[in-house]
Formats: sequence, C-alpha cells, structure tokens
Amino acid sequence: MSYEELKERVFKANMGLVESGLVVLTWGNASGVDRKAGVMAIKPSGVDYEKLKPADIVVVSLDTGNVVDGTGKPSSDTPTHLHLYRTYSQLGGIIHTHSTYATAFAQANRPIPCYGTTHADSFYGDIPITRPLTSAEIRGDYELNTGKVIEECFQTGAIDVTAVPGVLVASHAPFAWGPSPEKALENAIVLEQVALMAILTQQLNPAVQPVPKVLLDKHYLRKHGPGAYYGQK
Amino acid sequence: MSYEELKERVFKANMGLVESGLVVLTWGNASGVDRKAGVMAIKPSGVDYEKLKPADIVVVSLDTGNVVDGTGKPSSDTPTHLHLYRTYSQLGGIIHTHSTYATAFAQANRPIPCYGTTHADSFYGDIPITRPLTSAEIRGDYELNTGKVIEECFQTGAIDVTAVPGVLVASHAPFAWGPSPEKALENAIVLEQVALMAILTQQLNPAVQPVPKVLLDKHYLRKHGPGAYYGQK
Amino acid sequence: MSYEELKERVFKANMGLVESGLVVLTWGNASGVDRKAGVMAIKPSGVDYEKLKPADIVVVSLDTGNVVDGTGKPSSDTPTHLHLYRTYSQLGGIIHTHSTYATAFAQANRPIPCYGTTHADSFYGDIPITRPLTSAEIRGDYELNTGKVIEECFQTGAIDVTAVPGVLVASHAPFAWGPSPEKALENAIVLEQVALMAILTQQLNPAVQPVPKVLLDKHYLRKHGPGAYYGQK
Amino acid sequence: MSYEELKERVFKANMGLVESGLVVLTWGNASGVDRKAGVMAIKPSGVDYEKLKPADIVVVSLDTGNVVDGTGKPSSDTPTHLHLYRTYSQLGGIIHTHSTYATAFAQANRPIPCYGTTHADSFYGDIPITRPLTSAEIRGDYELNTGKVIEECFQTGAIDVTAVPGVLVASHAPFAWGPSPEKALENAIVLEQVALMAILTQQLNPAVQPVPKVLLDKHYLRKHGPGAYYGQK
Repeated sequence: MSYEELKERVFKANMGLVESGLVVLTWGNASGVDRKAGVMAIKPSGVDYEKLKPADIVVVSLDTGNVVDGTGKPSSDTPTHLHLYRTYSQLGGIIHTHSTYATAFAQANRPIPCYGTTHADSFYGDIPITRPLTSAEIRGDYELNTGKVIEECFQTGAIDVTAVPGVLVASHAPFAWGPSPEKALENAIVLEQVALMAILTQQLNPAVQPVPKVLLDKHYLRKHGPGAYYGQK
Repeated sequence: MSYEELKERVFKANMGLVESGLVVLTWGNASGVDRKAGVMAIKPSGVDYEKLKPADIVVVSLDTGNVVDGTGKPSSDTPTHLHLYRTYSQLGGIIHTHSTYATAFAQANRPIPCYGTTHADSFYGDIPITRPLTSAEIRGDYELNTGKVIEECFQTGAIDVTAVPGVLVASHAPFAWGPSPEKALENAIVLEQVALMAILTQQLNPAVQPVPKVLLDKHYLRKHGPGAYYGQK
Repeated sequence: MSYEELKERVFKANMGLVESGLVVLTWGNASGVDRKAGVMAIKPSGVDYEKLKPADIVVVSLDTGNVVDGTGKPSSDTPTHLHLYRTYSQLGGIIHTHSTYATAFAQANRPIPCYGTTHADSFYGDIPITRPLTSAEIRGDYELNTGKVIEECFQTGAIDVTAVPGVLVASHAPFAWGPSPEKALENAIVLEQVALMAILTQQLNPAVQPVPKVLLDKHYLRKHGPGAYYGQK
Repeated sequence: MSYEELKERVFKANMGLVESGLVVLTWGNASGVDRKAGVMAIKPSGVDYEKLKPADIVVVSLDTGNVVDGTGKPSSDTPTHLHLYRTYSQLGGIIHTHSTYATAFAQANRPIPCYGTTHADSFYGDIPITRPLTSAEIRGDYELNTGKVIEECFQTGAIDVTAVPGVLVASHAPFAWGPSPEKALENAIVLEQVALMAILTQQLNPAVQPVPKVLLDKHYLRKHGPGAYYGQK
C-alpha cells in the first residue's frame, strides 16, 4: 500500500466520523497502519474537518514515532495509537472520539454492559472501562500512559481485543479499532449506538441484566469466525 | 404483481428505513410478499443501504424458502419473516429494525404501554414483548424460533396481529408489519416514535397508567374499521 | 384576504411544522381564519405533507363548518379548531401537533411549569393540561368536546388565551395558537422547546420551582404589551 | 479593523449559532468588539436568522452604548454584553444562547461540573451559575444587572474569565466568550456539548465526582498557556 493510499483511507475514516455525527469541532481522530511499510497515518492535530485534505494526513514511523511524510504535527493522541498498534498486531485502524453517549459512560466510570443483540453482533461482551490514570501517569507521558492503561485493562480482564474492539478511558472518552480503518470506524459507530441504547435500557429497567452467554455466542459467532453466516460471503 | 414490481416496492421500503432514521449501518430489513405468486422479496444480507439497488432484492419461495430470483444471499432474518407470513395471511409487508427507543424497550424486557392517542391511532393496545428464547431455541434454528416466539406471544396474549402490527423481541429489537411493505414501514416509524414518547412519559410520571379502553377504541376505530372517518377515503 | 391568500398562508404554516421537526408522518395540522369572510382554512385529513399543495387546503364556514372551497375532506380535528375560533375572537391561527416532548407531558398528565425565561418570553405562566375527557365526551362529539375541555381548562384556571397561547390535551397532545397562522406556528415551536427543557430541568433538579412572578412579568412584558422593547418595532 | 470587517465577523458568528444547532427562532446573539475603535457590533433585536445580512449588524459605542453604525435596534441583551466587555478587557467576543442542555442547567440552578477531559480541554473547572437576580434587579436595569451578577459570580468564586469562558445565568441561559467572536462561538458549542454529556453522566452515576485537579491541569494546559502542544502551532 502506498503512502497515498494509506492517507486516502485514513482521510476517509476521519471524514466518516463527521458524517456519522461522532465528532464536534476538531475532537477525535482516525488512524491506519501499514505494517509492511512500518508506518501509521493519522489526522494532524487540531485541524478543522472542513479543511482537512488527504494530503494533510501525517505518516509516522511505527517504530520511532517520527514523521516520515507530511508537513503538519500529528494528533496529540499519536502516542496512544502507536502503543496500541505496537502491542496488538491484529489492529489495522484505530478511532478516538468524544462521541456523546460513549463519553458519558467514560465520565461516569461505567463499562457498557451487553444488553442485547445489537451489542453482541459487534462486541463479544461488555465494553470495558480502564482504571483512572494515577497522578504520576497523568503528569508523565500522558498519551503513552493512556495506551498502557488500555493494555492493562484488557490484560487484567483477560479480554481479546479482536472480540471486543473498543474501550472507554475513564473520565475521558472511547477508543475503537479493527483490522482496517474502515472497520474501526464501523466499530466506533456501533459503540456509540449501543451506549445510547444502554443508557435508555437502564432508565427503563434499572434492574436489567446483561444477555446470557448463549445469546452472546449466537449473535457474535453468526457474524464472526468460521461458522459465520451473516453478509454476502 | 411482477417480481420487478415487488422488488421495487421492497427496495423502497428498505430505503424508507434509512430516510426515517430507523437504521444504523446495515441493521434492519424490509420484506414484502406476493401471495398469488407464492414469493417473498427481502433485502440481501449485510449489504450497505448506500449501494442497494432494486435488482439486489432477493426473491424467495414462501413455501420452500429457496431463492427464486436474485444473485445475493437473503437477509439472515429470512426464516423469521417467512414464519410470520406463513402464520398470518393478513401480512403483506414486514420490517425489522434496531431502532433506538423500541430496541431499548426490547433490551429492558418491557412492553410499550399505550399512554396516548398517538399510540392508539395505530396500535390497539400495548405493544407486547416476547418471552426470552430458551438456550435450546437460540442454539437451534434461531431465526425460525424468533418467529415462533412472536407467534406464541400473540397467541398467549390473545392479541390480533392486525390490530397490533408490531412486537418487541426480548433482548433483541422490534418487528413491525402491515398489509403492504408501505404500511409496515409506517407502523415501524410509529412504533419507534411511541417508544420515545413512552420513555419520556414514564420519566415525567413514574405512576402513569395506560389510557382507558374508551379512548383506545375511539382513536383506533376512527382510523380503522367500518366507521373510520380519518383520511380522504 | 382572498381564499387563495388564506390557503397559501395555512399551507406555509403546515409545511413549517415539517421544517421545524414537529410532525411525523401525517400527524398534526395548522389552520387559519379570515373573520371578515367568516371562514377557516385547514389541512385536509391524512394527506402526506410531501404531496400537500396550497390548492389542497380546505376552506370551511366558521359558522356551519361546511366546506366552501376545496375538494378534500378537512382534518378530522376540524371541530376542535372551529370551537376555539368561535370561543376566542383573538385567535387567527391554530396548530395541533403530536410533537415529542409536549406530547410526553400530555401523556404524563402534567402541565409544563415555567422554569425559565425562554418559557416566560412566550407563555405567561405554566402551560396547562386539560382534565381527561369523560367516557361520554369521548364516545360523543369527540373532537368538539376536545375544544370544550380546552375552553373549560382556561375558564377554570382563569387563564388568558392571549397570554398563554397553548395547552396540552390530557393523554393526547398539544394545541398552540396566535393572532395569525405564522404566530401560532412560532408558539408551537416554543411550546415543544420549553417542554424539552422542562423535562431536562426536572431531571437535573427534581425539587426545582417555577420562576418567581417578577421574572415572568419582566420577560413576558418586554416582548408583549405597551412597554415591549424586544424586536425592531 | 473596519466596521465592515467587524460586522462581517459578528454576522458569521451569529450564523454559526444556527449552523451549530444552538438557536431556535430568533433566540441568541453574538457580538464582537474592536477596542481600538471603541465599539461593539451585535445582532439586531428579534431579527430572523434567515433574513440576517452583515449590513444588519448594529455597531454601538463601547463607552456610551449609542448606535454609531446601522439602522436597526441592537439586541435587547446589549447592556449585558457591554458590561462584560467593559469589565473584562480580555474579551473580544460574546455569545448568548438558549441552547437546550446548558439552559436546562441554568433553569435547574446547577453549575456544570467538570466530569471529563472534553470539559477540561476548554473550561478550567466547573462552569458556574450566577445567583438569582433580586426583584429589584429584575425590575430595574435588568439586562445591565444580568451583566453585574455575572461579574459578581466570577469575583465571589475567584474564577478567571479567561480560564472559564462561560457562565450560566440562573433561570435564564448561558453566556460564553473568548478573545474573538470565532473563539466565543467555539466555547458556546463546547459549553452545550459538555452540558449534554454532564446530564447523561449524572444519570449513569448519580454519585459521580468531578475529575481530579491533576487531570484538569493536564488537559487545560496542553491546549492553553506556554506549554501547550495541541494543534498546529
């Protein structure tokens, strides 16, 4: 994949955030990776989506984090993205937003329970929330440490990043990912929608429980894995 | 009705879901039936609404479920649609969505009570919720069994599918129907809107009761049945 | 004012309901009156807003209710509109909608308290809710009786229809009005917006009280009456 | 800066309110200041946004409040804007709206606590709420006194208007500001969005606490002040 192609796809994923109503102002960013070339492409920091062009997407080395293509500064969240790509070789795209309902769960320090098949179709279980960062982690390499608490969250919870392609960072906002920037965008959209439905579900029935594992298995596995039968493939 | 006409009408009902804001991504599907021809037309599985064309609509035999026209795979929810058409000869169109507020009621395992005339104009009483499927029903012919619990729900509650043209499947989402795909779409829109109003109504007055039968009768019967006087007919 | 001009203005008020997001499907209707000509113009019953043209607006006699211009049937809510125009000579336009938040208050059998200056700018005090209609009133001339309970509500509460240009009909939905169809539309928009803000205000502070009379006086009177200083007049 | 340029920028900020969904009907107004010229430009009172043109923007003397350019009456909130510009030399633009969620907090007499990094990125701590105006303040120079209670609120709370660029006026609605009309608009958008997220956060977790100061420092200071590293500068 050429830098141009990678930048074009990452540009489209960023614009998809706007079209899907997931971002306000310049909040949020999408990135994509080319593992053969050893690079990550990401939105420049603080640029208006209205003015964003494919040529503005910044390409950085996956290894060093140095800019290898582009004239702008990469997103301030670049160290978080890099840490996740380095830790999980399955990831091809990452999306960070402050989308309204998912951010409300993050601010409330609550995971998003799996209350139905909409959730189970894309996320195999609760969408977890990280522990709060310590004062030292906040004062130090804050964005890198954000990546590290995400890693810790999945490790501690024995959660598979492929089966649960998203997380809430406590007091902050969601990250979602996937094997490609396109799939990461789709998962970010689903994450926001299931967050909205979950808050309404809890309002209607404060004693509601997550769906049983058998329903989770059915829905997740009919869309994913060897026995999948959803879609045209 | 030719296959072309049926496919065109089912295509339009599917696109109506998008225009009405009832679907996110590829969730949801609309179908229509031609009882003389013994066929049902339905959205293909997992296809983007942006790319959907009338020619993509798949026609299957109402009897065998086999594809009789079209090159794609029919929606994974096809067995649910087929079961409902086979069980209720009154149905001409069926809509399945994961629309936000109706799905919240489904996830909360709560029926939608009739709190006002908006609801009574289209649904003659509460919109019921099915019992949860058993583990065996989920592991077995899941989509067919979804149709069967809907049937059981209306039978147990002695509810007329013509008078109450929709249902919530527990932990899943709504189905709505009507004598045609166009009317099924309208009922799906009403179902979502009354779900939204019902959650707000309960928030404002947790002790609210459903409307009395005399008001239900008045509103439902002024739009339906021999004494109807709403509309231009 | 010619019938054509009246129909054009009433058409525009009806389309304004759609543009303002106050109606779903064919719900809602706007009317206007020409007192010199002794006629009321109103939306035809159950016609799609997409297909509505100025020529479709039906003109009826304010006195007899008979159609004097137009080929369609007038809105089924015509007797409610007629009763209000006959009772209150100040009214020049009336709007009926099932707008989401105002309808939620109507369904919850709750008036909309005046919690702030947005409300006070247009409604001089709480927006009242009628008593429920009796079974006899529902089974009899239902739409006329709806007009009568609105009249009773303002009479019992000693409320001035000019100062409080709207009402909630219990278990049904709002009506709003004004000296013209244009002003009635504006009041219907305000009514919905203050309903939305009121439900949020109650959620944030369940013990919230209506604003003091001094603030109500200030805001209402700076826009209305002899000392008004808002706007370009 | 010529009057034309100032009026053009203030016009654009006013239209930005509409594009951002912050205003309904004619509610809300944006102003900007030219301190060298000693003037403030502001929206005319009660004019439809649809009909607003740059030439309609009214220029008044910062000193006397008299109109120095334009034919219309300035916004009825002009004395509030003038008082804030006179009191705080840092302000270059002020926005007043009745945006839904911020107004709900104002009506509920509640400040907006800082529950997350979205808030901390733009507002360095809680967004405060003024005390209610006294009856005498309401009956007297109401709009001027609104400016004075805002001043009192920041003085009493020892809050820096640069670090917290917005406020809620009790039982009324928000004001936001910034060094320019463009930045004031951005802060008004943020204020509304953090209000929405805050109400959802409290719903999900009634016991939620504001973020710790270390996180507030990190997020506010990475976008503002000498060590800022967000954006392209």
